[in-house]
Amino acid sequence: MDPWYNILMSETIFLKIISGEIPCHKVYEDESVLAFLDIGPLSPGHTLIIPKEPAATLGELSDESSAAIGRVLPRICRAVKAVSGASDYNVLQNNGSLAHQAVFHVHFHVIPCFEGGEGLQMKWNSGTLDPARGADIAERLREELR
Amino acid sequence: MDPWYNILMSETIFLKIISGEIPCHKVYEDESVLAFLDIGPLSPGHTLIIPKEPAATLGELSDESSAAIGRVLPRICRAVKAVSGASDYNVLQNNGSLAHQAVFHVHFHVIPCFEGGEGLQMKWNSGTLDPARGADIAERLREELR
Repeated sequence: MDPWYNILMSETIFLKIISGEIPCHKVYEDESVLAFLDIGPLSPGHTLIIPKEPAATLGELSDESSAAIGRVLPRICRAVKAVSGASDYNVLQNNGSLAHQAVFHVHFHVIPCFEGGEGLQMKWNSGTLDPARGADIAERLREELR
Repeated sequence: MDPWYNILMSETIFLKIISGEIPCHKVYEDESVLAFLDIGPLSPGHTLIIPKEPAATLGELSDESSAAIGRVLPRICRAVKAVSGASDYNVLQNNGSLAHQAVFHVHFHVIPCFEGGEGLQMKWNSGTLDPARGADIAERLREELR
């Protein structure tokens, strides 16, 4: 395992934001969730929602903390929409450096998007699922989830 | 309001998948959530998680349905990671056509990403949050969330 892993795990900036050691523009807080503005926004109103439980990736987070984030997402989305004035928005959560994760503590982005390009820019190079391959992948996923 | 809105709301392909009228490569199901493979995958294993409750966008979904999705996300992420062999992955949920939403029923994408570009391609044009502007936006978001 990467020697930096434990250091990143134990010393992310988000743990220092949770503890209050580093300030943030706080938006929302409950016993298991904190939300605050991204200081490197893709658009005005770009908000981060994090669990207080330390976990580098979503697959490592407890069901309870992930459910707690799920529960507040609709409210936070409505607030971001109302305050930013954007009609449309993306919710994004990145896991791993290849997936554009920079801070190794789970965070969900809520990113308003505007005509003219402010917001999340994506290229959507979709393929076509081969039915036989799809059946095989789905069967293996069901096995994993059993 | 767009005259197509109610038609899209009442007749999305995802409602037909939930009812069984249209088949899918099912991955997971419980009383409020269904997960299945995206037929236009960005990479092998690209999975969609939807609420059974009809709602066009996340801001319109009930807290309960959103929490139910949150609760299964870690398990589904682990399964997608194991089956696809990808170490890294993105979770993405789009709201509105400007945000790249194509089916107007809430859906979370789990998208494995691979060296070489298979997966979600993003451009990250981040700005810098002005502290005074951040304080104002955060205050207005807290008001909305009160």
